[in-house]
Amino acid sequence: MIARLLGGVALVLPALLPLPALADTLVDNINGMTVDRDGDVTHFTAMVIGDDGRIAKILKRKDKPPKDVDYHEDGKGRTVIPGLIDSHVHLMGIGLAALSLDLSDTHSLAEAQQKIAAYAARYPDRPWIIGRGWNQEQWALGRFPTAAELDAAVPDRPVFLERVDGHAGWANSKALKEAGITAATPDPTGGRIERIAGSKQPAGVLVDGAMALVSDDIPPPRPEDRDLALYKAQQELLSHGVTAVADMGTSIDDWMTFRRAGDTGRLTVRIMSYASSISDMILIGGTGPTPWLYDDRLRLNGVKLYLDGALGSRGAWLKAPYSDAPGETGLQLLNGTQLRNLMSRAAMDHFQVAVHAIGDGANAEVLDAIEEMSETYKGDRRWRIEHAQIVDPADIARFGRYGTIASMQPVHETSDRVMAEARLGPDRLTGAYAWRSIHDAGAPVAFGSDAPVEAPDPFAGIAAAMTRTDADGQPFGGWHPEETVSREQALAAYTAGGAYAGFAEGRFGELKEGEQADFLMIDRDPMLSSAQDIRSTTVLQTWIGGRKVYDARKDISDPPPKNDKREEKAGR
Amino acid sequence: MIARLLGGVALVLPALLPLPALADTLVDNINGMTVDRDGDVTHFTAMVIGDDGRIAKILKRKDKPPKDVDYHEDGKGRTVIPGLIDSHVHLMGIGLAALSLDLSDTHSLAEAQQKIAAYAARYPDRPWIIGRGWNQEQWALGRFPTAAELDAAVPDRPVFLERVDGHAGWANSKALKEAGITAATPDPTGGRIERIAGSKQPAGVLVDGAMALVSDDIPPPRPEDRDLALYKAQQELLSHGVTAVADMGTSIDDWMTFRRAGDTGRLTVRIMSYASSISDMILIGGTGPTPWLYDDRLRLNGVKLYLDGALGSRGAWLKAPYSDAPGETGLQLLNGTQLRNLMSRAAMDHFQVAVHAIGDGANAEVLDAIEEMSETYKGDRRWRIEHAQIVDPADIARFGRYGTIASMQPVHETSDRVMAEARLGPDRLTGAYAWRSIHDAGAPVAFGSDAPVEAPDPFAGIAAAMTRTDADGQPFGGWHPEETVSREQALAAYTAGGAYAGFAEGRFGELKEGEQADFLMIDRDPMLSSAQDIRSTTVLQTWIGGRKVYDARKDISDPPPKNDKREEKAGR
Repeated sequence: MIARLLGGVALVLPALLPLPALADTLVDNINGMTVDRDGDVTHFTAMVIGDDGRIAKILKRKDKPPKDVDYHEDGKGRTVIPGLIDSHVHLMGIGLAALSLDLSDTHSLAEAQQKIAAYAARYPDRPWIIGRGWNQEQWALGRFPTAAELDAAVPDRPVFLERVDGHAGWANSKALKEAGITAATPDPTGGRIERIAGSKQPAGVLVDGAMALVSDDIPPPRPEDRDLALYKAQQELLSHGVTAVADMGTSIDDWMTFRRAGDTGRLTVRIMSYASSISDMILIGGTGPTPWLYDDRLRLNGVKLYLDGALGSRGAWLKAPYSDAPGETGLQLLNGTQLRNLMSRAAMDHFQVAVHAIGDGANAEVLDAIEEMSETYKGDRRWRIEHAQIVDPADIARFGRYGTIASMQPVHETSDRVMAEARLGPDRLTGAYAWRSIHDAGAPVAFGSDAPVEAPDPFAGIAAAMTRTDADGQPFGGWHPEETVSREQALAAYTAGGAYAGFAEGRFGELKEGEQADFLMIDRDPMLSSAQDIRSTTVLQTWIGGRKVYDARKDISDPPPKNDKREEKAGR
Repeated sequence: MIARLLGGVALVLPALLPLPALADTLVDNINGMTVDRDGDVTHFTAMVIGDDGRIAKILKRKDKPPKDVDYHEDGKGRTVIPGLIDSHVHLMGIGLAALSLDLSDTHSLAEAQQKIAAYAARYPDRPWIIGRGWNQEQWALGRFPTAAELDAAVPDRPVFLERVDGHAGWANSKALKEAGITAATPDPTGGRIERIAGSKQPAGVLVDGAMALVSDDIPPPRPEDRDLALYKAQQELLSHGVTAVADMGTSIDDWMTFRRAGDTGRLTVRIMSYASSISDMILIGGTGPTPWLYDDRLRLNGVKLYLDGALGSRGAWLKAPYSDAPGETGLQLLNGTQLRNLMSRAAMDHFQVAVHAIGDGANAEVLDAIEEMSETYKGDRRWRIEHAQIVDPADIARFGRYGTIASMQPVHETSDRVMAEARLGPDRLTGAYAWRSIHDAGAPVAFGSDAPVEAPDPFAGIAAAMTRTDADGQPFGGWHPEETVSREQALAAYTAGGAYAGFAEGRFGELKEGEQADFLMIDRDPMLSSAQDIRSTTVLQTWIGGRKVYDARKDISDPPPKNDKREEKAGR
């Protein structure tokens, strides 16, 4: 096995490596720092990386460097921090979004048409052209665009493009035809088919519930699209300094994509996976979590469950009615028995359980369930609550019990604060995005982005966590600034905290002897910079397992998976 | 990666190994032989195995052995042949059959009840008790057994046991209740619910079409059952000297079971996998066959398609009607367009295609399709026809074209010859199980067992191939003996031929330098023994990748996967 793997690695990785594959590496002349889960920072000036990709030695100013190393990287005094962990992403979603057409920066219909046509020409093999982001207001069009206007860009393949708000879709004639939408098609419940004025003919735009008439016909991504999407997602993460993620809702298709990448040496970013359902969890893991695969790059930890919806669409399950929708308290997607049965099915085989809970009702219910489950499923379970956005102040102390992990996304607060105030009113904001209170209650905290909902940029997250202001510095002084956390705590929640939340402590997350050499060289010192400066951090280099996998100055990455598979995919 | 794997191997394998894991091994004092695809035999007296599990050197009588080896195995003059390849098995079927209760050796109802009760007590965790093989005639019962008689053995869990012929099932009261079968349940089409005399109450036995009323309620195997089944299947194969198989119809559940075994060091037998459907093929392989995984132990080669049924049930698609069912020509499960579309979908991404074809109509159709496809899909495709049982003599020459592989099962001939005569009549037997003619037509031939339909015993297959007689030597002189093959050809079809059929040549299948050290020590010389003697061969030792994985004198195998997963399956 060993020899074959060495062979495989030797074949695949050289393009990625400026250094010999297996040799001691000295990285010195650095302003190195690492932080533990408590937020305690340790500084160092150099490290030795063994031929196994792990840190062999951490050197401080007074330590003597080894004389005999095979590769030497001069840090030129730059700052080195641990690789960052994004504890809540939808990995394939990041990649598939990157592959689809983005019209959000177009300012006229003509510009959009040009961009659509160019995109279609660039991907002649795609059976459908999918995209998003258009906005007829931004185009100063004063009306919806038409199927005919889309046909002008792409006449020969179906095209379907979502509006910027996700509440309308623009189809060309081919797509309307594939969906069987004609003058005779009635508007579906909760939806509207825009019609050509003075006729019943569909005009091209489908609103809300009518979108599914077309979107249900869009074929699922092809395997080559999935492979390429994973490549794109990894590229994006590496450029942001993200070296490990928790993938929240891994389908069997996603998992097989991860394994294909692992089997062919193209899995770079570390993935802690949470299956999208109990059945996928069992299909993948069988009687328990998988081992760590591909040198700590992939593990099925457990399952992701959904207990409620989101705040914006009033799907978050609140204890009391929405301020802006009296009588509504959101959606409880699982009743108490269902939630406990699903948690129990996972826990009985030591799978880790991560439950999506946004409203205070949902959070209380998960905390109740964990409390009850903890009697049966003892030991180190690390129950996770994903988002934990709105928590009744009376429940915050309960986060500290049973080691319940709060997996939160700082940027959601700065993006959603105005909406949250409308939904909750002024009196229920005490437990909203309550990072400091939950941390102070003793809960292990892990930070993430929820990408592709938000950009997977941990530096934006750290800045938001420190200030509760957005990129424009709004609101001045921060929104409920009593819930900010220190820079050390924020960094810990993106490093050691994220590793702990995924049972990866000791493997990666901190720069210390025996751990994977996952680190970043960045252009400023996060311990000395202002929050707004931290937000602008440039990642100069990203290293994973002792190998440089991203360099801002040049493209050192693997080439994307080939679509041309004539010869190399033959029988052997 | 390397260090982790070494760590993993060191943790998992010692129990299996009488020798250091990584060191040169000398196996000498042997009557060694290997055969190439042409049937040419090479003899040797010793071999050196490198620390990678591959053959470093083959030594002949005059060669000097190396002085410095880490482990020495004295063959004591025994015969050594390559590990045998079974080119058509249902791997999980072998294991699941081994896990279910077998009543075929019971001679009274009381004995059966005792065996059922003991089995239920042995597997207290199984939610259902499943079994087969009962025969009320063998019990001299003169009637079907009853649900009450089964309740006497197992009252607390549902039980469902198939009759020896598969045409009836015996349920206990729990199973009848789960299935909702009551006095009010009508007999389904094509089936009969046995009733208690003088009443409408179900008696316990369900005939033919009524069996599904219960069997549809049986839950699929649990992951721990699948893991255990794979272990049992491997144990059985190793004891028969089978070191590699082609798995014909791998479901996604099967594949994940293989990977779990590979990931935890419990995959011993090499698997060349053919997905059970195009969609599973794409889900697993994505844009092409997987790489060889786990040091040549697992690869998704392609897909298995079914073109017709079987001869016994008159499902085989014949060119002319069945002799014993005038007007019937069997089942064509795919029309010509479907067959070509499915073959094309696989071939376009260089997946290998294996088509089940038993009747002469089906074989002609696959040969037609291959002929047409070969214009489009050039190169080394190795189209496989599985079974190729009944071939129109006019079509035999066509097997030689385009390298079409005939994957055949010698024991099917000896088991089925009387039935085949009835189905085909005397005039259509020329192309039946026509091993020699197909070989002489230039087709690469691979032999297998179709286990669990037949026992996975290659020595029985070699004997049948050489003689066309069964274990009792019937019929005297052999059935259509002109279709026997030489012992060398038979051995080649179980070794080098099987490797070639699965794109594994150069990796395993022959004992030569650079190939995996997969070999058997057996108690007789197949080049000198009679066919009936070969049939009685005892496998003394089975080695895979330079490691002894089976020894007839003692249990050196891995322990089975544990059901007790309290601590070791915890988070880390």
